[in-house]
Amino acid sequence: MSPFTGSAARTSDWHHLRVELTDGVATVTLARPEKLNALTFGAYADLRDLLAELSRERSVRALVLAGEGRGFCSGGDVDEIIGATLGMDTARLLDFNRMTGQVVRAVRECPFPVIAAVHGVAAGAGAVLALAADFRIADPSARFAFLFTRVGLSGGDMGAAYLLPRVVGLGHATRLLMLGEPVRAPEAERIGLISELTDEGRSDEAAQALARRLADGPALAYAQTKALLTAELDMPLAASVELDASTQALLMNGEDYAEFHEAFTQKRPPKWRGR
Amino acid sequence: MSPFTGSAARTSDWHHLRVELTDGVATVTLARPEKLNALTFGAYADLRDLLAELSRERSVRALVLAGEGRGFCSGGDVDEIIGATLGMDTARLLDFNRMTGQVVRAVRECPFPVIAAVHGVAAGAGAVLALAADFRIADPSARFAFLFTRVGLSGGDMGAAYLLPRVVGLGHATRLLMLGEPVRAPEAERIGLISELTDEGRSDEAAQALARRLADGPALAYAQTKALLTAELDMPLAASVELDASTQALLMNGEDYAEFHEAFTQKRPPKWRGR
Amino acid sequence: MSPFTGSAARTSDWHHLRVELTDGVATVTLARPEKLNALTFGAYADLRDLLAELSRERSVRALVLAGEGRGFCSGGDVDEIIGATLGMDTARLLDFNRMTGQVVRAVRECPFPVIAAVHGVAAGAGAVLALAADFRIADPSARFAFLFTRVGLSGGDMGAAYLLPRVVGLGHATRLLMLGEPVRAPEAERIGLISELTDEGRSDEAAQALARRLADGPALAYAQTKALLTAELDMPLAASVELDASTQALLMNGEDYAEFHEAFTQKRPPKWRGR
Repeated sequence: MSPFTGSAARTSDWHHLRVELTDGVATVTLARPEKLNALTFGAYADLRDLLAELSRERSVRALVLAGEGRGFCSGGDVDEIIGATLGMDTARLLDFNRMTGQVVRAVRECPFPVIAAVHGVAAGAGAVLALAADFRIADPSARFAFLFTRVGLSGGDMGAAYLLPRVVGLGHATRLLMLGEPVRAPEAERIGLISELTDEGRSDEAAQALARRLADGPALAYAQTKALLTAELDMPLAASVELDASTQALLMNGEDYAEFHEAFTQKRPPKWRGR
Repeated sequence: MSPFTGSAARTSDWHHLRVELTDGVATVTLARPEKLNALTFGAYADLRDLLAELSRERSVRALVLAGEGRGFCSGGDVDEIIGATLGMDTARLLDFNRMTGQVVRAVRECPFPVIAAVHGVAAGAGAVLALAADFRIADPSARFAFLFTRVGLSGGDMGAAYLLPRVVGLGHATRLLMLGEPVRAPEAERIGLISELTDEGRSDEAAQALARRLADGPALAYAQTKALLTAELDMPLAASVELDASTQALLMNGEDYAEFHEAFTQKRPPKWRGR
Repeated sequence: MSPFTGSAARTSDWHHLRVELTDGVATVTLARPEKLNALTFGAYADLRDLLAELSRERSVRALVLAGEGRGFCSGGDVDEIIGATLGMDTARLLDFNRMTGQVVRAVRECPFPVIAAVHGVAAGAGAVLALAADFRIADPSARFAFLFTRVGLSGGDMGAAYLLPRVVGLGHATRLLMLGEPVRAPEAERIGLISELTDEGRSDEAAQALARRLADGPALAYAQTKALLTAELDMPLAASVELDASTQALLMNGEDYAEFHEAFTQKRPPKWRGR
């Protein structure tokens, strides 16, 4: 828990998501299985606020984002979101779209790795949530679809036009965002859209195992690796090299680096403290 | 047709290209088959001016770039261009090279998707024209070669050193631009250089089908998707997320988004208007 | 040899590396085979100074970086480097990490292509040295591992968090830098991490052949291709197109471009001068 706690109240009761915390691993489950976990205004707002809270608290070292039931997430709910936005004025439309973008920024900028456990459909905003994660662990039923143009919107939603070319290259990204066609697991693996392909029905389990490994390991080193990957996409080479140098100097003063050396010298495994 | 028409005269008679317009689809054919569609000064200038004119007019919703005869385009004509540039002074050399670069910028920045239909050779400037397109639809005879170093020039021609690493990654791009070796269709597909591999002799047909689909669909959504993909290659994450938010807010006020919802509710296909 | 030689003394006696120069090809061999070519403070400093000297001199047109014995390079020496850094104060830690970063910048910015010849292990700083090269020629025994988090440090070391996403995409880069797991030759080829896969034991030979070809070819064109690839990763499209235009105008005034045209006209191979 961070010592830098202000007056803002904390919540342990998230209405629109299922949130579990076990020894540094947070599991956030989209849990409207009867709707293929379609996102509501409340779910977006909870994701935004939860990630902000977990980022401040420092109790979490790895986060799994999963979906209950037949799929990961079918995206924004057609009735509850598309219908409602048709009645909104411009200021409110901006508010809504900024909120969804804040979720993606929070996933990219939170100080712990995020692992999306994907089975079945990951469509629209669900595909972008998975895309924003650090790891996408998918089983053979996984199916990504950036459906935005299919509803008359831009394929660049929630940062997708920024992120996808940096993950799979501009050619594939153009095809996927422009046409909104489904990418099944074998193609997703071939073009670099998933991190690990598991056996059928094993993506949640594999995501939990990776989260456990990350939480039990040199967690500050992982957090800084993520921070540098995120930051250096937007930085030139010379500045990146300088940022790497100061980050390593910082971590070379840390406990885990000294522990590695001691364990290596004593020919035993290191006991990571995550700092 | 755009209401923002100035005094500059329009041309319907392009001497160095074949240009056809059918219901929102423009087809631009490089048509010097006896020279493998080698580009001349006139062809570059026509491409630059045509794309500028089509971008202003708004009558076009998708553009196919194709080559007549045995191949797509063999690049700058050795006699007419290399020979002539040897006699040019520095100011004129800059003029020429800026013109070719303007063609690539126009392909990336025009407000409609560009589909290159590639069969046979796409070499030198021909390879870069295809690279700048949003989609590269190729048949098994396609052969890309960034030949510039083979004539003593830099592999970074017309933006290739910017675009190619963003399409296939820095490693492949270095190899292709430095060595100028041909990339055949199977490798092009493997490294993400082509969007779709068709059967032999079917690339023109597949490109036309895609252009028709794009022109008949939510064309403003496609145009904005392209604009965001182009812009966000040069933007940081936070600004990209903001641009996405304002673009979606704009399109949520548009006709096609409302039409999608109405069609969905009525369980019928949407009638896209492209606005 | 460059005419722009200052007062600083030159060295032909490199204590921590083996350096050979043959007709424009430099071969730099990491030669502590009994330690899998683990890097020492001296080796980093020699790499930094050698690349700076070769960049000024202009006697080199291509450089091969190779490892003697069973592997390419196992990274920073655990005893000599990790042990020593534990006793350093913050200023010295920064100094050390800046030095290693300067080596990577020198590899990316030197005015000649760098070819890493990789067999066996390329781990930690050894993996980043190979990553910074323009070409990675590997045999089936090659094994890349970005081991930094395994010692409690950030995966973003020496620019790796900048370079790796631009070579293999953000998804693969996150996995490799975060987890530090080995990437064997087939996967390295599949994700674009190597430029050429040779037969067993042939990576040195293939690297020398490529270096010879580059040194005997239009070397200024190659050098500028490299410079543009490096620079344009950090530049927007419009500026990149302008840089390409001025570079081509410069090279169109050069000897090799005129020679190409003359040779083409006379139906003979060009005699490249590299200028």
